[in-house]
Amino acid sequence: MIRDAEGRYWEEGQEVFETPQAAPDPKPWSETRVVGTRRMRVDAYERVSGTAEYPSDLLLPGMLYGAVLRSPHPHARVLSVDATAAEALPGVRAVISGFTPLNAALRPHEQLIRETLFGPVRRFEGEAIAAVAADTPYHAHDALRALKVEYEVRPFVSDERDALAEGAPLVHEEGNRVGDASTYARGDVAAGFAEADVVLEEEYRTECQIHVPMETHGCVASWDGDTLTVWESTQGVFPVQAGVARGLGMPLSRVRVIGKYMGGGFGSKLSMGDYTLMAALLAKVSARPVKLFITREETLLSAGNRPPSNTRIKAGVKRDGTLTALDLSATGTGGAYRAGGTGGLDFLVRELYRCSNVRTETQDIYVNAGPARAMRAPGYPQAAWALEQMMDALAEAIEMDPVALRLKNISLVSQVRGRPYTTTGLEACIRDGAEAFGWEAAKARAEATRDAPVRRGVGVAAAMWGAGGGGPPATVILKLFSDGSLNLNLGASDIGTGTKTIMAMVVAEELWVDPDTIQIEHADTGTTQYATASGGSKTVPTESPAVRAAALDLKKQVLEIAAAQLGVDVATLALREGKVVTTSGPSQEVPLARLNDLRRRGVVVGVGYRGPNPEGKMVNPFAAHFCEVEVDTRTGRVELVRFLAAQDSGRVMNRTTYDNQVHGGVTMGVGFGMTEKRVLDRGQTGRLVGHGWTDYRIPTAMDVPTSLEVLPIDLGDREANSTGAKGLGEPATIATAPAIANAVHHALGVRITATPITPAAVLEALAAQRQESTR
Amino acid sequence: MIRDAEGRYWEEGQEVFETPQAAPDPKPWSETRVVGTRRMRVDAYERVSGTAEYPSDLLLPGMLYGAVLRSPHPHARVLSVDATAAEALPGVRAVISGFTPLNAALRPHEQLIRETLFGPVRRFEGEAIAAVAADTPYHAHDALRALKVEYEVRPFVSDERDALAEGAPLVHEEGNRVGDASTYARGDVAAGFAEADVVLEEEYRTECQIHVPMETHGCVASWDGDTLTVWESTQGVFPVQAGVARGLGMPLSRVRVIGKYMGGGFGSKLSMGDYTLMAALLAKVSARPVKLFITREETLLSAGNRPPSNTRIKAGVKRDGTLTALDLSATGTGGAYRAGGTGGLDFLVRELYRCSNVRTETQDIYVNAGPARAMRAPGYPQAAWALEQMMDALAEAIEMDPVALRLKNISLVSQVRGRPYTTTGLEACIRDGAEAFGWEAAKARAEATRDAPVRRGVGVAAAMWGAGGGGPPATVILKLFSDGSLNLNLGASDIGTGTKTIMAMVVAEELWVDPDTIQIEHADTGTTQYATASGGSKTVPTESPAVRAAALDLKKQVLEIAAAQLGVDVATLALREGKVVTTSGPSQEVPLARLNDLRRRGVVVGVGYRGPNPEGKMVNPFAAHFCEVEVDTRTGRVELVRFLAAQDSGRVMNRTTYDNQVHGGVTMGVGFGMTEKRVLDRGQTGRLVGHGWTDYRIPTAMDVPTSLEVLPIDLGDREANSTGAKGLGEPATIATAPAIANAVHHALGVRITATPITPAAVLEALAAQRQESTR
Repeated sequence: MIRDAEGRYWEEGQEVFETPQAAPDPKPWSETRVVGTRRMRVDAYERVSGTAEYPSDLLLPGMLYGAVLRSPHPHARVLSVDATAAEALPGVRAVISGFTPLNAALRPHEQLIRETLFGPVRRFEGEAIAAVAADTPYHAHDALRALKVEYEVRPFVSDERDALAEGAPLVHEEGNRVGDASTYARGDVAAGFAEADVVLEEEYRTECQIHVPMETHGCVASWDGDTLTVWESTQGVFPVQAGVARGLGMPLSRVRVIGKYMGGGFGSKLSMGDYTLMAALLAKVSARPVKLFITREETLLSAGNRPPSNTRIKAGVKRDGTLTALDLSATGTGGAYRAGGTGGLDFLVRELYRCSNVRTETQDIYVNAGPARAMRAPGYPQAAWALEQMMDALAEAIEMDPVALRLKNISLVSQVRGRPYTTTGLEACIRDGAEAFGWEAAKARAEATRDAPVRRGVGVAAAMWGAGGGGPPATVILKLFSDGSLNLNLGASDIGTGTKTIMAMVVAEELWVDPDTIQIEHADTGTTQYATASGGSKTVPTESPAVRAAALDLKKQVLEIAAAQLGVDVATLALREGKVVTTSGPSQEVPLARLNDLRRRGVVVGVGYRGPNPEGKMVNPFAAHFCEVEVDTRTGRVELVRFLAAQDSGRVMNRTTYDNQVHGGVTMGVGFGMTEKRVLDRGQTGRLVGHGWTDYRIPTAMDVPTSLEVLPIDLGDREANSTGAKGLGEPATIATAPAIANAVHHALGVRITATPITPAAVLEALAAQRQESTR
Repeated sequence: MIRDAEGRYWEEGQEVFETPQAAPDPKPWSETRVVGTRRMRVDAYERVSGTAEYPSDLLLPGMLYGAVLRSPHPHARVLSVDATAAEALPGVRAVISGFTPLNAALRPHEQLIRETLFGPVRRFEGEAIAAVAADTPYHAHDALRALKVEYEVRPFVSDERDALAEGAPLVHEEGNRVGDASTYARGDVAAGFAEADVVLEEEYRTECQIHVPMETHGCVASWDGDTLTVWESTQGVFPVQAGVARGLGMPLSRVRVIGKYMGGGFGSKLSMGDYTLMAALLAKVSARPVKLFITREETLLSAGNRPPSNTRIKAGVKRDGTLTALDLSATGTGGAYRAGGTGGLDFLVRELYRCSNVRTETQDIYVNAGPARAMRAPGYPQAAWALEQMMDALAEAIEMDPVALRLKNISLVSQVRGRPYTTTGLEACIRDGAEAFGWEAAKARAEATRDAPVRRGVGVAAAMWGAGGGGPPATVILKLFSDGSLNLNLGASDIGTGTKTIMAMVVAEELWVDPDTIQIEHADTGTTQYATASGGSKTVPTESPAVRAAALDLKKQVLEIAAAQLGVDVATLALREGKVVTTSGPSQEVPLARLNDLRRRGVVVGVGYRGPNPEGKMVNPFAAHFCEVEVDTRTGRVELVRFLAAQDSGRVMNRTTYDNQVHGGVTMGVGFGMTEKRVLDRGQTGRLVGHGWTDYRIPTAMDVPTSLEVLPIDLGDREANSTGAKGLGEPATIATAPAIANAVHHALGVRITATPITPAAVLEALAAQRQESTR
């Protein structure tokens, strides 16, 4: 959440209002029958068989294919775009650039076309120059090649470490600093350091990680009169709707966005892309539906990334493990435009451990590179990479076990907000995780390999996530058909995390019906109610209480109908296995399908809203990751032998998808820590080095831990919300990389402070260690 | 509505419950700003430009095309179906008949396939034998030709006038009578005739009229795991859902039926067809989407009709015009199966005019012919053809003006139910209609042509409709987006009558917003709430109060949000032009788009239900049609020179679509009265004579009245429902044909008692008149 100069709060580009919603929430279940069990996804068959229709699968009659010409230069002025040859090619139906003569269809969008989508100055490789629509993708890409563009190439700076140097090329005329540094302080840091027995200072670097969803970014846009329908691969149909309506100057009701299935987003699909507006304009001018999905190369250049970070931490600790001071300075970059390049870098230092004296300072910097976008816990893995290695170094310096040091500094309140957490699972994650992992035994096992060529090491890292409590708004409708089967109408996207399955389980729990009879329609601004984007690990804690409220509203009506039919007091009735039954008095029952008033009405509709979060409390998820590595000192190869993720995300809603989420989070953490790195040339061209999978390496099945155990820590949160769930997706990825780095340090005695921990990096660190010891 | 042996009521194959719904309705508007004006349809552009996607336009990836082999014999046993050659043809993906070996996909549907869809005995030409799915429609029809079927041809009877004769072939073993005759009596008919000054008796015949919607009947069926989606050309997605779920043994929630646009139904698309289940089965067995739209020839044979009728009326009247007795005997046929062949034939005689002594008897008969289905006011045009010609004859016999005779016999109560009408527009329709038409002047004009070869005549006929008041259930959701634009979620189908436009006007009226910002999603069982089929002239009176209730629910919430924001009493607030304004106290206003709590919530949702109908009252529409003809006695050609339709359908919701409805109703009445006739061979083959437009002639622009005036009679009904609307579609077609017949009689002095009034029929009648006068 960002607070602007006028004191308004913004999230995902939308203003957020503080007024709590009035609807009171029921207390969480004390016992459950369905929720918490292992349950196969409701759409497992469709996903596995290939019948699931993703936006990129969609075929509409008469549909054209769009493609985008993108700047090959990191910084250039576009002098002209000549489309004559492209437009003359067979099958080419529309070309739009900043130089296109505007007809009646495009004229209302002059500013959007001339200044925004295809503006005169392009500030990163991959920024758009023109878009085309043609009969096939091949015709479209032929057309791109036929466009003649004149550029005035400008000097560039592609690395934030170069951008503040004297005489560095300017990304924007006003300079390369994105505003002033963002600072925070509490206590007296100097006094804290004075108080410490040990003070350490270290610099950490994380490389840029790119979102690489299986389904690339894009949409199909189709006009029906003055109504635009967009099938978008998105995490949130409502933010896309808002963006398109704003971009094209249309009422929200005239923009329908549908996003039933989507093939991964990780934060880069929280809102529309430039491709969305381009598809809409191409469809408008060609009077045909247009499918525009960007290529994998465009994904790497223009669709978002977790930006690089440079973090210096100075930390003071007493011999007994008490943290006395933490001081962080960090820089980052959102690319060529304002995109939160340092967001989240300072959170963990402020909040994760109890410390009275804290100072943070972050500076966001412009460079000529593609935009950052939120990526699974934006800023946090970078921050944990620094803080959790520092904690490890402090423990070593005071000769304390790193698990013990962390347990020494648990905070039960948010130190920034001064409010207690509804539940703080950090201690349990660390303590129970260490026990389940067999921390002590593993440490001893590792020590025994100190002289072997292949050495073992163990590492721990902890995490929390600044959101993950969810909150209003969410509006859900649940419809009971006359045969007792149900339709759940949910605005939220299921981004592959099992949202639909969990929501069906919530309904089944509350109404005691067969979850298989619940059909879910979701993620459609035209036909579902409102939901925020599925991101920030807030989907389940936001939507599940709203779904439960809808189920309760429906239950109330159903029991009233049954009470009238059976001639009994409604208070004596309950739902059991698809029937209404009496719980006291003479035994009576009636199946849902035999409720006369239900059959007369056709359907009964329950409406549910997400209630407000608990006043004066914080709702946050916590985690601790434990890793055992085997490092071959001759090849530098690090094998992740064992991994355990202890997660406090409140109630486990579906144990199967819970495990899936943690597996995914740890895997992305492995990629962040060990394999992934965007390489931009810093010298002659400023361009991305390598445009595919061989150059940008995401982890494969060979890279992930051989054994990966998930340990849910459920403290029975009765205050967070009416289902007791907290977010899981992001907290599962934050601590992974530093746990690995700490294990590598434990195995080798060398600390790798820059991602990724490649075999080359390990060998280099070992070489430096040898030089050090022989000096 | 049909009452079964157990006292349950059924409509459209679904049980109807009598319990009234609790939700109280607001009083109708006394004044309106939007409702009642002329307004272009919200989907006019889509419909006219061709961008509207009808189910028959739908193309899905991998979609196959279905086709149905239908019996060429009116009565036969199917001995075998050999699909070997058909299945070997290229592009043929599935063949299903009563002889298909059943695999795992089809086995659960054995009874449906073997006994229902493709049962062993076929009782009409066009009853299904087999269905195929293939890559293209051409492959599918090739496959039909390659099927080898052995029939045992049986004797048939194709005309109900032959079916009760001694030794007539039996359609069903139990005989050709569809149960016993249906009878009704009040008073003492014999006494009534004794009291009369004049008693007349006459037989009337109407021919079978076939539904010929622009879009033929059919659907696209597609499976997604165990969920079936059907895009059907239908008047009611929920009845189709119920039928498919029942037919295939599935929960309602697993059957999604979508019917956004549809190209005409007129009653023949109130529920699913055999083609719906066939498409679902073909899609299941081929694991591909299947489009199955029947051909025009199949429409004429198998998709429904207004059955022929044979009506004898005996009527008594006093010299002063008082009706003393009415006695009706009628036969009809629903075809080879029970399909309400005489439904509605007796209503008008019982109810339209005040008469103490009434007896009716109707007998439904089986014949080997395609099934009747509800057709725009089922039974009523046939009944009006008889009764309104009889009224004309009575007026002539007692030398009274036919307008005056009708005005003499107005009833303000339902004589069958003993309940008053909320409003009775019959008198105003006749009186004001006659005045607007210039009845007396036209009559005089006509008298002046008596000796000319081209003679003029004027005719009047009155009508009422037995339904048209609408009623529960209906559930509607109205969603206000944060920019003040709206989405109306409506289960009902817009069958071309302008339902969507009218509902947008209702919302705009209540919320004082721009109707153009209201987007409507409708007719989708997966995403909209419940609605009954759009039929029986009940869509507007059923849905518009539910829509208004949803708007009021939304308004209440919006005003509460505004009151909190402005710090004023909610009672001082009102909606004006997209803003909330104070109506008393200090002047304040806030646009909907600036309501903070609305922006925070994303949407505000209003839910509306259709309340109960007024207790102890009847809600019915009325009409009177006036016609001036010019008949060329040399060619027999009847030209409709002038036509006026006076309609009491309560409040005029949209004057444009009101006029459209009446134009359509009169046009269908012209077809019924003057051009349309299904001809079945009564002798050798029993087959339909002619399979296309040249043989079955529907009216063209050359056949409809040169001048057609619509006169709405709005008596300001405050009781019918909260919008004051009554049904219009059916009452607009009932009186047309007899008004023309009466005008022809006025012109020529001959009475044409059998439809259609073709030039040949006119010349024959004139010849008979000459023979009579020379005898």
